[in-house]
Amino acid sequence: MIEPLVLKGFRDSLPSQEIPRRKIMRMLEDVFTSYGFVPIDTPALEYTNVLLGKGGGETDKQIFRFQDNGKRDVAMRFDLTVPFARFLATNAASLPVPFKRYHMSKVWRGENPQKGRYREFIQCDFDIVGADNAISDLEILSLMDASFKKLGIEGYTFHVSHRGLFNTFLKNAGIEDKNVEILRLVDKLRKIGEEEVIRQLTELTGSSETAAKVISYITSVEGESFPDTVTRLEGLAGGECDASVRLKEIWALLKAAGIEGHFILDPSITRGLDYYTGIVYETFLDDLPSIGSVCSGGRYNNLTALYSKETLPGVGSSIGLDRLLAALEELKHPILRNTAGADVIVYAQAGQETIAAAAAAELRNKGIRTDLYLQPGKKMKALYDYAEKSGTKALITFDGEGKPSLKDLVTRDTVTGDIASLAEKLLERSL
Amino acid sequence: MIEPLVLKGFRDSLPSQEIPRRKIMRMLEDVFTSYGFVPIDTPALEYTNVLLGKGGGETDKQIFRFQDNGKRDVAMRFDLTVPFARFLATNAASLPVPFKRYHMSKVWRGENPQKGRYREFIQCDFDIVGADNAISDLEILSLMDASFKKLGIEGYTFHVSHRGLFNTFLKNAGIEDKNVEILRLVDKLRKIGEEEVIRQLTELTGSSETAAKVISYITSVEGESFPDTVTRLEGLAGGECDASVRLKEIWALLKAAGIEGHFILDPSITRGLDYYTGIVYETFLDDLPSIGSVCSGGRYNNLTALYSKETLPGVGSSIGLDRLLAALEELKHPILRNTAGADVIVYAQAGQETIAAAAAAELRNKGIRTDLYLQPGKKMKALYDYAEKSGTKALITFDGEGKPSLKDLVTRDTVTGDIASLAEKLLERSL
Repeated sequence: MIEPLVLKGFRDSLPSQEIPRRKIMRMLEDVFTSYGFVPIDTPALEYTNVLLGKGGGETDKQIFRFQDNGKRDVAMRFDLTVPFARFLATNAASLPVPFKRYHMSKVWRGENPQKGRYREFIQCDFDIVGADNAISDLEILSLMDASFKKLGIEGYTFHVSHRGLFNTFLKNAGIEDKNVEILRLVDKLRKIGEEEVIRQLTELTGSSETAAKVISYITSVEGESFPDTVTRLEGLAGGECDASVRLKEIWALLKAAGIEGHFILDPSITRGLDYYTGIVYETFLDDLPSIGSVCSGGRYNNLTALYSKETLPGVGSSIGLDRLLAALEELKHPILRNTAGADVIVYAQAGQETIAAAAAAELRNKGIRTDLYLQPGKKMKALYDYAEKSGTKALITFDGEGKPSLKDLVTRDTVTGDIASLAEKLLERSL
Repeated sequence: MIEPLVLKGFRDSLPSQEIPRRKIMRMLEDVFTSYGFVPIDTPALEYTNVLLGKGGGETDKQIFRFQDNGKRDVAMRFDLTVPFARFLATNAASLPVPFKRYHMSKVWRGENPQKGRYREFIQCDFDIVGADNAISDLEILSLMDASFKKLGIEGYTFHVSHRGLFNTFLKNAGIEDKNVEILRLVDKLRKIGEEEVIRQLTELTGSSETAAKVISYITSVEGESFPDTVTRLEGLAGGECDASVRLKEIWALLKAAGIEGHFILDPSITRGLDYYTGIVYETFLDDLPSIGSVCSGGRYNNLTALYSKETLPGVGSSIGLDRLLAALEELKHPILRNTAGADVIVYAQAGQETIAAAAAAELRNKGIRTDLYLQPGKKMKALYDYAEKSGTKALITFDGEGKPSLKDLVTRDTVTGDIASLAEKLLERSL
């Protein structure tokens, strides 16, 4: 016999996990499509050099890479951004511009598993490419807001910043050449604390005064409004510039759309990744900030540079579905409260198969998820164990004459009536 | 620059393909959940010996197999049945019995690509394990019927047979020892023709009389009813037996459920796979039988034998999603007629971003999929090209005073009015 082992860092998704996961993915999909975003899919496997760029020759421990039976050097995708860039280059001729797509699918990384980190997880990306203006930035921010609203999450805040404005500031401060290191350092602020950032900044720039300047740029001022912060930051950056104008336009559009309440300007947000050039953002849950950002992204000015001469600016965002799910679980969010696969179990005694099947058909036609118990005549003990494990809270049984009754398995209340009237009771309950 | 190549046998899914695919998957999911089936997921990667059984040592060209960075022998799943068996063994303690699951996900096979066959495709499996009775068989058959109804497919026929009855027949004919070869031969009937099957059967059994017996068993009699065929077949098999009784029970339940119209008893159906023991079935589209079975499966008596001592009988089915999609495309099925990602495009002239964004928000709130065009002030030529490639058939623009009008891009009809009244027009149209 073979031991039914799952690989390290991988996991099964049981119904109690998969039901809310699919529910959330469908809700998100409904929001994306309401914005006219379209779904795509790309292969799980790609040529390694396509995924890793020119550095395809080096060994990257993070990815699942191998030689296929045709001696090709292939790898499993580790994110949805790189395959999207490749997809755009491959299919440019047939795609509308601007192109708005969403992609919810699995990615694989060989990193060492730790709490909440797995080697296989679902990413949920949405991007607009082919437009560089404030209304496109707004569209992504608005879609993020609509997504969190749709999920029924109450407290969430989008922390927005602008990479271009920060770079202008660094230039103005004469430390532009150190921008990659400084960005990475600032990105670690939450993790290592301000004191350590100052120490390393001073070391890096050779000046405690310069370090203080950076700190003053990235530090929020209690109670300062979004536009006032823009004005203060553009002052530090040497005056009004394209980036600060864009931030003002975005703020005006957010207000016009009436969704500005969930947005704050947070200059400490930089995002570690190199390719961002415009706005960048992270999303924190007010009641669980410690779990980190659950939705992040920004504007980039050329996603497809690796594969195509055409320049495609874009703006996009990614929801960390598994992290969000973990957070909702911790917050006991209603979506995760009921993970039963059915609204009711219909139980047939031996010989009652036909009436039970007919009752199930009637209930299903009325939109009630109906689980026909398939062990007619089994002991009630087995049935209750089944209901317990299934999580289903209602049961319909039939007496000797085939008359149905509905039992609430929590309160133990029982009502009798025909299937139509019991269906009404069930529908009332699930409202 | 890197050429944006996709691996041989793999393909991107463009929005025009992905939109109907996701629509169909959601419709199927709605049917599965209405039956109380629950979703699961398993890792894309598993230990090779878990996937290939004891034969894990041999080289199987059909699978993507490699050594991971931890020197484990791993492989990408090639179907959803083997991972399901492993899943059952791993998670037995927390699952209700009977357990009804569906699983829609990608699988990978390294076979040589040919028309309509890819190295990556989606399987859509649903099974009931832990029950062996007619009502369970009915539940799967009923779910298959409900799925095809839901998709709005008119002509489809489920060809049902019983592997156990065929085996009893072979025993009665004294050729039980050849049953594997005979099953495979009969399974090829449609492909190689009756004459060739007779020739090979005669060679295999050494008797043209025996070959004729087999042919008479697997040949349908024009106009013969389901129960009459059962009676005839049990005659050929040596009288009533468990298998023929089961077929009669299933027929009675199908009639009681009022869905018998789509089912025929077709003794030529055997399914090539070894593990089936009870009913087996294939599904053909009346208007496109040549595409082959689009939904197949059967009853097995022990799925988890490889991993567990517990015996788990089950019955299940698999919809070949990509084949079904190809068929629906060829049949010009309504689901594939409109693959636009949006119901309407809202176009803003430069300076009209705010009213356009507000109009889009209002339309989305009314359930209209609204694509806000993100190149304010672009030439109308670019806009029409965008609409053409997006497939969207309606356009809202604003005049100099911000007064909206709705244009039907097919008929070129234009109506003017406030957004609420234009929304009504759009909702009427999509009904």
